[in-house]
Amino acid sequence: MKPYCEMTRAELETLKKELDAQFDQVKAKGLKLDMSRGKPSKEQLDLSRPMLDVINSDSDLDSENGQDCRNYGILDGIPEAKRLMAEMCQVSPEQVLIYGNSSLNLMFDTVSRAYTHGICGNTPWCKLDKVKFLCPVPGYDRHFGVTEHFGIEMIPVPMDSQGPDMKLVKELVESDDSVKGIWCVPKYANPSGMSYSDQVVEALASLKPAAADFRLYWDDAYTVHHLYGEERQDQVLEILAACEKAGNPDMVFKFASTSKITFPGSGVAVLATSKRNLEDALKHLKWQTIGHDKINQLRHVRFFKDLEGIKRHMEKHAAIMRPKFEAVEQVLEEQLGGLGIGSWTTPNGGYFISFDALEGCAKAIVARAKEAGVVMTGAGATWPYGKDPKDSNIRIAPSFPTPEELATAAEIFVLSVKLVSVEKFLALGK
Amino acid sequence: MKPYCEMTRAELETLKKELDAQFDQVKAKGLKLDMSRGKPSKEQLDLSRPMLDVINSDSDLDSENGQDCRNYGILDGIPEAKRLMAEMCQVSPEQVLIYGNSSLNLMFDTVSRAYTHGICGNTPWCKLDKVKFLCPVPGYDRHFGVTEHFGIEMIPVPMDSQGPDMKLVKELVESDDSVKGIWCVPKYANPSGMSYSDQVVEALASLKPAAADFRLYWDDAYTVHHLYGEERQDQVLEILAACEKAGNPDMVFKFASTSKITFPGSGVAVLATSKRNLEDALKHLKWQTIGHDKINQLRHVRFFKDLEGIKRHMEKHAAIMRPKFEAVEQVLEEQLGGLGIGSWTTPNGGYFISFDALEGCAKAIVARAKEAGVVMTGAGATWPYGKDPKDSNIRIAPSFPTPEELATAAEIFVLSVKLVSVEKFLALGK
Repeated sequence: MKPYCEMTRAELETLKKELDAQFDQVKAKGLKLDMSRGKPSKEQLDLSRPMLDVINSDSDLDSENGQDCRNYGILDGIPEAKRLMAEMCQVSPEQVLIYGNSSLNLMFDTVSRAYTHGICGNTPWCKLDKVKFLCPVPGYDRHFGVTEHFGIEMIPVPMDSQGPDMKLVKELVESDDSVKGIWCVPKYANPSGMSYSDQVVEALASLKPAAADFRLYWDDAYTVHHLYGEERQDQVLEILAACEKAGNPDMVFKFASTSKITFPGSGVAVLATSKRNLEDALKHLKWQTIGHDKINQLRHVRFFKDLEGIKRHMEKHAAIMRPKFEAVEQVLEEQLGGLGIGSWTTPNGGYFISFDALEGCAKAIVARAKEAGVVMTGAGATWPYGKDPKDSNIRIAPSFPTPEELATAAEIFVLSVKLVSVEKFLALGK
Repeated sequence: MKPYCEMTRAELETLKKELDAQFDQVKAKGLKLDMSRGKPSKEQLDLSRPMLDVINSDSDLDSENGQDCRNYGILDGIPEAKRLMAEMCQVSPEQVLIYGNSSLNLMFDTVSRAYTHGICGNTPWCKLDKVKFLCPVPGYDRHFGVTEHFGIEMIPVPMDSQGPDMKLVKELVESDDSVKGIWCVPKYANPSGMSYSDQVVEALASLKPAAADFRLYWDDAYTVHHLYGEERQDQVLEILAACEKAGNPDMVFKFASTSKITFPGSGVAVLATSKRNLEDALKHLKWQTIGHDKINQLRHVRFFKDLEGIKRHMEKHAAIMRPKFEAVEQVLEEQLGGLGIGSWTTPNGGYFISFDALEGCAKAIVARAKEAGVVMTGAGATWPYGKDPKDSNIRIAPSFPTPEELATAAEIFVLSVKLVSVEKFLALGK
């Protein structure tokens, strides 16, 4: 098959007829498939079932420092949970605070705290006329949701294969003191699956922000979520150390959780940051709660023991996820390769593949797929305010469906891409 | 022993010498006892150990509507948890939202949401010059902590045996639109242990607030926490129904949790409120989290089954708590009865006994007790800003120590009361 842009009108019209017929056939099947969210599959969740046995009615429920995990107390997490999560985050236990069941909640609360009380003595954002965040795009819709909810102006910053466009980031952060943060998913980014290069991490750590309360909102959601063995794993420079080295020890809030390691909704979240930021956060947190779920912290620690335990567990996740990613990539390559109507990422980890369609086609493709029973993440979701100016980016989430469902869903997706692309060329008066 | 106020100076001086000697003896023992916080004892926590077995690796982990509780989703709680918690709160499942592990966190977030985004379209409190809360006193220090943290002005309102002084409440709420809330612990109040009468509940429900976003912050922390059988249990009118009946359906946020039913820190919290308030809360919550811990919700439901299960469980708590309350009350009665140097409550439930010393003595008594190794809640803690104008109220928390420890701690407490009271009379130049 030759690139669509080289086809004559007659060829395009013939192709469209064929595609329409294929689409009608598929649509008639009345399928219901979902590639919209980064949800682990049932098979993945089963991997953590044994964790439900490590705490039972016979268990010693004291933490290693002798605190009864069943009772009130320990605002910042039990020592063994701090150690485990710190190890996962490549920081020291003194740099972490164990939170509740969700890093999203932790990120929301971190922004909310800055809004109501300010960061480290700086003016609360609710008292400022304007607060801005930089949003590398494509990015994570729930990040954008949090900042939009607090009326924070979001400025899209393009991503390339190394990370966000650092020239633009530097210019904005260093000249404008209303720029208070940047959302980053440094490893296996949502949705591109790409990781920040060392140069980008160092450039971020070396920023000289105009605002004293500027912070990197570093969502390390996929820090151990590799798809392949060590020979094909991304490594990202540890950001707390990089910031410290660059003379900006307080400039980062790093977030992570076990949501996509054990159970989403029943995991353990963690904040890693400087001593000063931690103390500032705890001053606020002590009014918010007496403590998070320490039994669940204990459950996680006793199940994994240490980072090696987490890594072995993540290899099992990878064994389930890898074939799904490869199945989608194979369909994309076989069906769309060389047609010039889309490009996509082939990440080494994470939960997503990012697809760029021809300009102006993303919404129509997602609508088409839906018509045939495949739910994708809404087009535009990967941009602030849901507005992709090129209407081009689509996030593919291959984790939840079974491999069989996924093959079908991917076929329907590429069919939708082809159809909408042909229609675009025809509409252009080709 | 006759009342201290009837004693001659000589009698008081002799008494002081005796008390000093007793105190020195006790102090020499170097005890370490804690009656400061409403923490369940280890024996109480053991009651819920079997709950840790009801969910294990073999469990069906689907909610009754077929959702996998291990995965993301269900922002407002699984249906069976809503039903159980609604039953406990005497409301319908449509009126509840299941939260995380702590009702304090839920209360904090509710105030924070009002501060950042406003309630049901009203002006966010951060945009107002002045926001006030009424604080029935003595009350719960963590309530006061939340409002103080958000810069809300707290106005103390005296409590009597029926509840808060409704004449004053009505006057303030109906005349001043900066009064946005009142903290209430309607049943077995913290710290008095007393419950609101039907007349008080009806009067609260019938308020005509000047502020459209005035709400009752109804902390039903001790709703099933009786110390005695049915013949001696307090009943409080259900407030959502009372507000609805009075034409104020949206005027209340009711909070509760299983923290003092199962495990503090690993319980399940609940918000009960009107449909309109719930929708308003969920509009905000959907940016804060994808959902709370549904496996823990399931664990609670499968352990208790229904309200009857909770009630049977609470009878076991009562069997442990009752002797402790009675031991303290007995020491107070035997040692202080008729002396005219203190009065105290004898609640039918909850976690506290409230003690009123002679004016100007509370701080000194708590300091004395501490000197002899007994930690009490800080004097003043039961008042906004930690300032008890009469320096009189002390909260006694008998739950955590063993009965033996408690007997000793109570003896030391009454000794401290006597000493400080004698000193007061002597200082008055008696």
